[in-house]
Amino acid sequence: MNLKKITLGLFFLGSMLTAQKQAVEYVNPFIGTSNYGATNPGAIAPRGMASVSPFNVAGPQNLPHEKDSRWLSNPYVHQNTFLTGFTHVNLSGVGCPDLGVVITMPTTGAVETNHLNYGTTYTDEKATAGYYSVNLSKYNVKAEATASTRVGVTRYTFPAGKSNILLNLGLGLTNEQGGMVKMVAPDEIEGFRNVGSFCYNSPEQAYPVYFVAKFSKPAEEFAIWNKPYKYEGVEAQWMGYNGKTRIMKGYTREVVGDSIGAYVTYNFDKQTQVEVKIGVSYVSIENARQNLEKEVGDMSFDQVYDKTKNEWNKALSTIEVEGGTEDEKTVFYTALYHTQIHPNTLNDYNGEYPEIGTGKIGKTSGTRFTVFSLWDTYRNYHQLMSLLYPDQQLNMVNSMLQMYDENGWLPKWELNSTETFTMVGDPASVVISDTYLRGIKGFDVDKAYEAMLKGANQIENNPLRPGLEEYIKNGYVSVDSKIGGPVSTTQEYNISDYAIAQFAKALGKKEDYKTYYKRSLSYRKLFDKEFELLRPKYSNGEWYKPFDPNKGANFEKNVGYIEGNAWQYAFMNPHDIKGNIKLVGSNKKFVTQLDNIFEKGQFDMANEPDIAYPFLYNYCKGYEYKAQNRVHELIAEYFTNKPAGLPGNDDTGTMSAWVIYAMMGIYPVTPAAPMYTITTPVFDKVTIHLDENYYDNSTLVIEKQGNDGIISEVKLEGKNIRSFFIDHDELTSSGKMEIILK
Amino acid sequence: MNLKKITLGLFFLGSMLTAQKQAVEYVNPFIGTSNYGATNPGAIAPRGMASVSPFNVAGPQNLPHEKDSRWLSNPYVHQNTFLTGFTHVNLSGVGCPDLGVVITMPTTGAVETNHLNYGTTYTDEKATAGYYSVNLSKYNVKAEATASTRVGVTRYTFPAGKSNILLNLGLGLTNEQGGMVKMVAPDEIEGFRNVGSFCYNSPEQAYPVYFVAKFSKPAEEFAIWNKPYKYEGVEAQWMGYNGKTRIMKGYTREVVGDSIGAYVTYNFDKQTQVEVKIGVSYVSIENARQNLEKEVGDMSFDQVYDKTKNEWNKALSTIEVEGGTEDEKTVFYTALYHTQIHPNTLNDYNGEYPEIGTGKIGKTSGTRFTVFSLWDTYRNYHQLMSLLYPDQQLNMVNSMLQMYDENGWLPKWELNSTETFTMVGDPASVVISDTYLRGIKGFDVDKAYEAMLKGANQIENNPLRPGLEEYIKNGYVSVDSKIGGPVSTTQEYNISDYAIAQFAKALGKKEDYKTYYKRSLSYRKLFDKEFELLRPKYSNGEWYKPFDPNKGANFEKNVGYIEGNAWQYAFMNPHDIKGNIKLVGSNKKFVTQLDNIFEKGQFDMANEPDIAYPFLYNYCKGYEYKAQNRVHELIAEYFTNKPAGLPGNDDTGTMSAWVIYAMMGIYPVTPAAPMYTITTPVFDKVTIHLDENYYDNSTLVIEKQGNDGIISEVKLEGKNIRSFFIDHDELTSSGKMEIILK
Repeated sequence: MNLKKITLGLFFLGSMLTAQKQAVEYVNPFIGTSNYGATNPGAIAPRGMASVSPFNVAGPQNLPHEKDSRWLSNPYVHQNTFLTGFTHVNLSGVGCPDLGVVITMPTTGAVETNHLNYGTTYTDEKATAGYYSVNLSKYNVKAEATASTRVGVTRYTFPAGKSNILLNLGLGLTNEQGGMVKMVAPDEIEGFRNVGSFCYNSPEQAYPVYFVAKFSKPAEEFAIWNKPYKYEGVEAQWMGYNGKTRIMKGYTREVVGDSIGAYVTYNFDKQTQVEVKIGVSYVSIENARQNLEKEVGDMSFDQVYDKTKNEWNKALSTIEVEGGTEDEKTVFYTALYHTQIHPNTLNDYNGEYPEIGTGKIGKTSGTRFTVFSLWDTYRNYHQLMSLLYPDQQLNMVNSMLQMYDENGWLPKWELNSTETFTMVGDPASVVISDTYLRGIKGFDVDKAYEAMLKGANQIENNPLRPGLEEYIKNGYVSVDSKIGGPVSTTQEYNISDYAIAQFAKALGKKEDYKTYYKRSLSYRKLFDKEFELLRPKYSNGEWYKPFDPNKGANFEKNVGYIEGNAWQYAFMNPHDIKGNIKLVGSNKKFVTQLDNIFEKGQFDMANEPDIAYPFLYNYCKGYEYKAQNRVHELIAEYFTNKPAGLPGNDDTGTMSAWVIYAMMGIYPVTPAAPMYTITTPVFDKVTIHLDENYYDNSTLVIEKQGNDGIISEVKLEGKNIRSFFIDHDELTSSGKMEIILK
Repeated sequence: MNLKKITLGLFFLGSMLTAQKQAVEYVNPFIGTSNYGATNPGAIAPRGMASVSPFNVAGPQNLPHEKDSRWLSNPYVHQNTFLTGFTHVNLSGVGCPDLGVVITMPTTGAVETNHLNYGTTYTDEKATAGYYSVNLSKYNVKAEATASTRVGVTRYTFPAGKSNILLNLGLGLTNEQGGMVKMVAPDEIEGFRNVGSFCYNSPEQAYPVYFVAKFSKPAEEFAIWNKPYKYEGVEAQWMGYNGKTRIMKGYTREVVGDSIGAYVTYNFDKQTQVEVKIGVSYVSIENARQNLEKEVGDMSFDQVYDKTKNEWNKALSTIEVEGGTEDEKTVFYTALYHTQIHPNTLNDYNGEYPEIGTGKIGKTSGTRFTVFSLWDTYRNYHQLMSLLYPDQQLNMVNSMLQMYDENGWLPKWELNSTETFTMVGDPASVVISDTYLRGIKGFDVDKAYEAMLKGANQIENNPLRPGLEEYIKNGYVSVDSKIGGPVSTTQEYNISDYAIAQFAKALGKKEDYKTYYKRSLSYRKLFDKEFELLRPKYSNGEWYKPFDPNKGANFEKNVGYIEGNAWQYAFMNPHDIKGNIKLVGSNKKFVTQLDNIFEKGQFDMANEPDIAYPFLYNYCKGYEYKAQNRVHELIAEYFTNKPAGLPGNDDTGTMSAWVIYAMMGIYPVTPAAPMYTITTPVFDKVTIHLDENYYDNSTLVIEKQGNDGIISEVKLEGKNIRSFFIDHDELTSSGKMEIILK
């Protein structure tokens, strides 16, 4: 008789009886899988390099959300119906297609290698953090997926009969082509697949993702397939095989091509499960193999899932919430889940990773993070990470500084050690400054400052700040510079300069502080009183005309702005809201302008420039209730427990960070100013478990008192603060903030 | 003062003074590089895996002998003018395009990666065994090439200025596409290039040739280029780079594709030489690296060439000739050189090689040979190897038996461990039997016999002998079998069965001897008295009609025959010439038929079926003079010291073996009958140095006495043999044969 087992049994029984749902159980990975949220319901570990997503965006059956017929940035769309496999590296919530490759697919009967023929409809999709399953209608196969950090694991339950598992290296979401595949043994395949040219940029930086796939049962037969391009020359007349797929049975050497794959086949006399473990790496096949062996080894599918589920639960339990509906909790924890996907791990188990720009393999003792969509994330995401996961945030800053060491520049939109140069501005400085000002200082501060100044000042060959010369000289980037979105770019440089100013101030560099602070206010030169908006200007100082401030909504191209129009950029000066109000004239006029934006459909919840707008009412005394109302209306309208429950691209967690803050009742309006503005929490009580290595307190509670009405009082440790703003330090070093409604 | 140097100097001086030209100096690698000889003038070591050939068959400048505009099987055509690089693996004297890849090209100035743009005219070509050089007009660069067994070495002499060396993995002679390239260091590139689908067959067996390239000077800059296929989808509209070549500077990871390459660049302040060593392997990149290091290592270009030249001289000095013109000696030694190219070494330095059909890597302690064009070579080539290089011939037989061990069948037309199934018949049995009967017995005789019988008897799934069932039942393959060339196929099976019979007899298996000997005569059933020729037959015994015996010359397709017509196959029954004569009716009628064939243009010197015809006069007493005359006329007409100095494809040395025998005055008419028939030698004296491990005598002399007239007497060790036939054993165990003319 085993006493330990009994005790353990009683413990679990006890847990079930008390039965508060764990944080992890509130994750609904289907949120954001429609309405261009661009998330996927696949299985992933926190900040995983590998993930396993169902792939249902190929083939005319999936029109109009079909990958080749439009700009589509996700491997999965919830309303689609035709599944052609399971991808093993994926991006989540981004706006451009990439990754979505290394595709497995179980089938039965005769082998078919063309996804248009082997694809299938499906039923019974289930997804939770670290797990996804589906039944494939055509084959009566149940497919399940889980993942560790660098290994995607699938389990296929086949009926009796001939069963196949395909590894398709042709099909993929990325627009890059080409790969290599090699059968190492009847239970092991290795190779790589090219990815890259994110947002159709920098194709010369395209790079391989390496993999090693292990099957729990050795193949009875295996083959490589290869469909070369159709030969057009005279010689085609002698090629009986021209344009046809080659099936290379038992082939064991490398095969390269754009339409290649491997399959293993079995003959089962009864229902049988096969597990497939795919280790990935951006360094080498050998590292992919080591990642697989060290991280997963002989663990079963269930063991991997258990471990990953626990990791998720631990990560998500950083915040506990009370009150709110089940749906609200689901929205909240799913958002938190979505913030733990990118930036993700780039380094292998052994610490190796591809350096940026050098062609060398680097080695890190910490985590090398990748996927820095900084134009998005500098606004709120990293602030949230500093609060909830300061160790991760520190690692992210250190990763950015490694990049500076490697290629001489801080990142702009980094993806797997390629600089995609997507979007505008110089956002890394903002993130680093903000992190420091929130008390997370364990990085090389001198190097960080040097890197910031280089981006802010190097006139020639500066990849981060095109147009810098005239920006410094005139205070703005002009229309005739031909630089896309000169107004937006000016504003972004202002925000970055403000962050540098604050960093300089903290480091005691007073002159620098003055210089950059002054630079940060130059957007004002673009304020046109006629429109009471920022307006594009020529380098000679004349206004750009004809000027239509409405032009540019919904990503329409326009002169002046990037992904937005004059309304959506009007108040994107978060470091100078008071100054902005002065430009407009008065609090009242400012509030009227804000109201107009919301009420006349100029507010875009789906894109970053204006996402702080609802909180700006807090800068106008007496109008704070409008912030409270707007924020709650926006949460209710755009953030729901449905596949369409994100307003648009999650932007690697930026939208999710917005709703997490909004639901907690605080928001970090000004990057590189360590404070929050306050609105009504959704929950009655929010308990944040702070990391004691970075914060004095281990807990921060935000408690709502009263359920209706507007905020009448905010108390910190029982004392009314008489403000709708609270410093980060003050908040975190207090145990509790009460938000009292009446 | 260095005594050794002086001694050495005196030695060389002495050599020069006595100044008999060495055998190696009589090699003219340009012979066969025009008129579809399909040889190339590139540098190669005896039986080398690697070779470095100039590549001048790409680009419209080379029309009509341009690789994409016709069936062209060689990397080089003598009359072409536009050179686009140097290939590092090549086939010689074959009829189908393959290999001709891993191309280096020196250029100067701005880098151009498109061969149509970087190609150049050239002057001052020089070639000898193991060495080739040329001046590239556009660049004023001298390019030189040499090779060891598995390493191609080039040396480029650049003028001062910007210099580049390209490694083009897109361009090639093979119709296969695709490869991989990776810069390992500024002086090292590794990768592979796909080859295969020889004769447009078996594309699913296409395979990589691996390489490692080392540069004597590290690149100052390097890049990979990749020109992906043009994207046709909707997304192409966002790809500014669509269809353009990508230059990936400093890129250090694997790049795969159909149009890829790497280049290194230098800036030289004065004329500078760069040496490039490229090790190849059919097993792996690691083996290619080891081949390079172990075979060449730090040796200079000159050292490699010296070593290879010595190896060639040693191999060619197996025969010494006296008399004859310089041109005749050149034709002779170049032919001997051409017999030492294929079959070539397949195994790496460490003994590893790709097995045939298993997907595994095998290991051999001897040499694993490859490129067995057995339909050609069974007729005379292996007989010559048994005489001159018995150790090589034994290794070839053992290689064939390894193949049987690996995939269960003897080879038919094996190329780099793929069975191309080119041509018809079951020729390996003939080669093995003939080898044994010539006294070379150091192989597993029981296994060889088992392998032969399997090919001769297995009815189902027999890849060597399609149509075997009706062949055994009816004695011939019928027109309605739909098997290509049923008459030719029947004859080939007869020849193989004859060889098996002789082998059985030698092994004391009398019943088997009777069975197979009887089978070997079944071609007689196809003899049609109406035409006095062999004629295709239906399975019901009726003759195929309408029958045009002339149809099928010059490779025209026809019913009945493969690569030939009824005339060219009429007497391809070398094991039953006496019986054949009886069928025709009389010696006189036979001679008349032979004369008709020669005089009416039905004889084809360029293809194998009828190449023994000129010797057949020897079977008709009193007409032997006709053999002597025909043979000398054919030598004079078809074998000259000119690029067009081969009658057509060398067929991996078969044509060369023909002329070597013909010039020595002996010819092995009947495969698997160890004897020679005798005609007039070209040379006054031929001295063959026999291998004492296989032969009792160390020397065999064939001496011609008298220069005009016909053979009046043949003496062996001074004794008139009163015959135009001599046994192999008798000849080799005698010291000398005198052929006396008057």
